[in-house]
Amino acid sequence: MAGEVAIVGAGQSRFGVLREGMKSLFVQAFFEAMDSVDKGLDSKEIQEAFVGSMAFGGGQLGNLAALMTEQVGLVHVPSRRVENACSSSSYALRDAWSAIRSGLIDVALVAGVEKMTDLPSDRQRYWLGVSGDTEWERLAGSTFSGLYALMASRHMHEHGTKREALAQVAVKNHRHGAHNPKAHFQREITLEDVLRAPMLAHPLTLYDSCPVSDGATALLLASREVARKFTDTPVYVRASAAASEYLALHDREDITTVPGTVLAGREAFRQAETRPKDIDLAELHDAFTISEIMALEDLGFCAKGEGGPWTLEGRTEIGGDVAVNTSGGLKAKGHPLGATGAGQAVEVFKQLRGEAEKERQVSGAEVALTHNVGGSGATIAIHIFSR
Amino acid sequence: MAGEVAIVGAGQSRFGVLREGMKSLFVQAFFEAMDSVDKGLDSKEIQEAFVGSMAFGGGQLGNLAALMTEQVGLVHVPSRRVENACSSSSYALRDAWSAIRSGLIDVALVAGVEKMTDLPSDRQRYWLGVSGDTEWERLAGSTFSGLYALMASRHMHEHGTKREALAQVAVKNHRHGAHNPKAHFQREITLEDVLRAPMLAHPLTLYDSCPVSDGATALLLASREVARKFTDTPVYVRASAAASEYLALHDREDITTVPGTVLAGREAFRQAETRPKDIDLAELHDAFTISEIMALEDLGFCAKGEGGPWTLEGRTEIGGDVAVNTSGGLKAKGHPLGATGAGQAVEVFKQLRGEAEKERQVSGAEVALTHNVGGSGATIAIHIFSR
Repeated sequence: MAGEVAIVGAGQSRFGVLREGMKSLFVQAFFEAMDSVDKGLDSKEIQEAFVGSMAFGGGQLGNLAALMTEQVGLVHVPSRRVENACSSSSYALRDAWSAIRSGLIDVALVAGVEKMTDLPSDRQRYWLGVSGDTEWERLAGSTFSGLYALMASRHMHEHGTKREALAQVAVKNHRHGAHNPKAHFQREITLEDVLRAPMLAHPLTLYDSCPVSDGATALLLASREVARKFTDTPVYVRASAAASEYLALHDREDITTVPGTVLAGREAFRQAETRPKDIDLAELHDAFTISEIMALEDLGFCAKGEGGPWTLEGRTEIGGDVAVNTSGGLKAKGHPLGATGAGQAVEVFKQLRGEAEKERQVSGAEVALTHNVGGSGATIAIHIFSR
Repeated sequence: MAGEVAIVGAGQSRFGVLREGMKSLFVQAFFEAMDSVDKGLDSKEIQEAFVGSMAFGGGQLGNLAALMTEQVGLVHVPSRRVENACSSSSYALRDAWSAIRSGLIDVALVAGVEKMTDLPSDRQRYWLGVSGDTEWERLAGSTFSGLYALMASRHMHEHGTKREALAQVAVKNHRHGAHNPKAHFQREITLEDVLRAPMLAHPLTLYDSCPVSDGATALLLASREVARKFTDTPVYVRASAAASEYLALHDREDITTVPGTVLAGREAFRQAETRPKDIDLAELHDAFTISEIMALEDLGFCAKGEGGPWTLEGRTEIGGDVAVNTSGGLKAKGHPLGATGAGQAVEVFKQLRGEAEKERQVSGAEVALTHNVGGSGATIAIHIFSR
C-alpha cells in the first residue's frame, strides 16, 4: 500500500505578521505550489480540495474551503474544511491521501491557511485556547503555555531533563529558521536569550514558545499512476497515521508522554516499513520546546528521558542522528495553526528533492517524517515520506 | 465501484430546542446508532471518526471531534472535524466513504452535532450568516432569508412558480414531520398558516424557513466485506458526489439554479448507474421552501420550472413520483446545521429497511438520495443509497 500517493508540488506564503489577508495568502501558497510542478499541472486537473484552517479568519470567513478555492479558480471542485485545531492541515493531507487511494480521484489540493495577527489579543487568546479542554482547563483559567509548563516540569522531575535542553531546542530551531526565507523569525538566538526572556509559565519563557503567525501552505497530491506526468521527482507519502487522546491533561496517566504520538508513530513506521533510525529528517510539532523533546522520545528516536540529552549533544541537528525541524519548526518558521501541518510537508518536499537552502539542506535525505499536534496532544497526525 | 461501503447502523437525538448540551446529544446519537446494529458492533471495531459540526458549541468547544469521540470511549481513534457549514456531516460521510474504499479502514463513525438554541440571538444570527459570502453579502446586511427570497422571486418571475407552491412544500414536510417522533415540529400546518405567517423577506414567511435546532446524528459505516458481520440488511452507499460554487449570488449566472447541485447530481447518478425516476425517496435540503423546488429541478426529477407544479400536484408526496423529505426535512424535522447531512442518511437508513413510522414509510423503497447544501449553494454533497 505504501507509496500509492505522491506530492508533486508544494508551496507556501511567508509565515509571520503579514499585511495580506486570508485570500491573498491562500493564492500565494497555491500558485507557488502550482509553479513548483516541474512539468506543469493544469488547475483543471485538480479534482478535490481539502483545506485546513482553525480560526477561519478570526471566525469571519465561513464556508472557508469553497471561498478559498474560489479565489484560485477551482469553483466547482468539491472542497471541504478539515479542522482539528493545530493539526488541521495534516488531517486534510490524510483525507486527501485516502481519497486518492480509494480510486475516487487522481489529483488533489491540500492547503492550510490562517490569519491571526490582525485580531485583537483577546481574540487571539480565544482561538489559541479553544482547542484545549474547555470545561476543565480553559474556563478554569489555564493557558497553553501553562499546560506545556506542567508537562515540562513533570518531565524535568521524572527524567532529569535540564532547563538548558529545552532552551537548546529553541536555539537550534532559530538557527535553521535563520536560513529559511519563509520563516517568521530569521535570526539566531543564544541559550542566554531563552533563559533570560520574560517568563510565560515556569519553566517556559517567551522563547520556549512558538509565535502566533499568519500564513498559508499548499500541496498538490497525485496518485502514483499519474504523478510522473507532473514531475520526475515526486515525493511519496509512505505512511499516514493518526490518533486522538483525552483533551484534558488530568485524564492522562502520564503527562511526560503523548499517547497519540506513540500510537500513531508506531502505526506510521509499520505502514512505511521503516524505523526511526532510517529517518533522515523530521518536522516535529514544537509549539513549545518541551513538545519537541517529548516527540523525539514518543516516536522512538530515543528512549524516554533521552530527548534532553540528545538535544544537548547535537544529535537532532543537521548532521546528527536525525535533523529535526530544519525549516525552523513552529518555533522559528512560525505557527499559523491550521496551515502548519501542510507546511511541514512543504519542508519535506523541498528537502527530499534537495531544494532547501544550502545551510539547512540535509545532504542525501531520502526518508522524512512529519508530526503535527492539535491542542495539547488531543489530535495527532504523522506522515512518512520518501523520494 | 458502487456499493463498496454500507451503513450498518444509524441513530440520532431528537431535533429541536433541547435541554441537553453537545456531549449529551452526541452520546445519544452514537448509542442509538450502536443499538441499531442488528448483530451488534463492539465500539473497539470503530477505526476512524469523522465529525461534522459548524458552530462547535457556539464556538466554545474546540478540538471538537476528539472531544466528542472521547465522550463515547473512542479515545485513541483518529478523529477529525469536517466543516462545510450546513453540509458538514455529508462531507464527513463522503470522507469516511473514501477512507473505507481506500482499504485504510473497515469501520468508521460519521457523526454530526450542533447546539444552537442556548446562544443569544445575535450569536445564532452570526453562526447562521457566516457561511454565506462575508465580504459582499453578510457585511452588506444580507441574511439567508434575504438570499433565498431573491432566488424565490427570480424563480417566480422566470418560471411562473406560484407562491402557493412554495407554501405547499412546508405543508407537505410538516405533514411528514408530524409522524416523526424525532422531528423538531410534530404538527401539521395549512397553506393559510404559511401565507399568513410573519414575513421574513418577501415572498418568504416564517413558515417558508427551517428552524434553528439542536441535535446530533450518527452513522456506522462498514466495508462491503465486513458489513454482513454486523447486519443482514445493510444500506449501501451507491454514490457520493460533491461540488462547490461561488459563495456570492452575484457571481452566479442564474440564481434560479444551483450549479453545484446540477454537477454533483449528474455525477451521483453516473456513479450509481441510476436515474432520477428510479429514486424512491429523496431527502432534499429544504432550508427554505424554494430550495426544495430548485433541488427537484436541478437534480432532474422534473424539468426547470416544473418544481412548483410538481409540488402542487402532489408528485413529491409519499405515493407520488418521488417521496421528498419523508423525515419532515429541514423544514419540520429541523436543522441542526452540521448534523443535518448525516441526519438525512439516518432517515434513508430507516426507510430502506422499512423501519420508518408507518404513516411516512415509503412502501417497497429500494433507492434513495440525499442532497445537502452548505451556505446558499456554495458546497453541495449528494449521496445515493440502496438496499
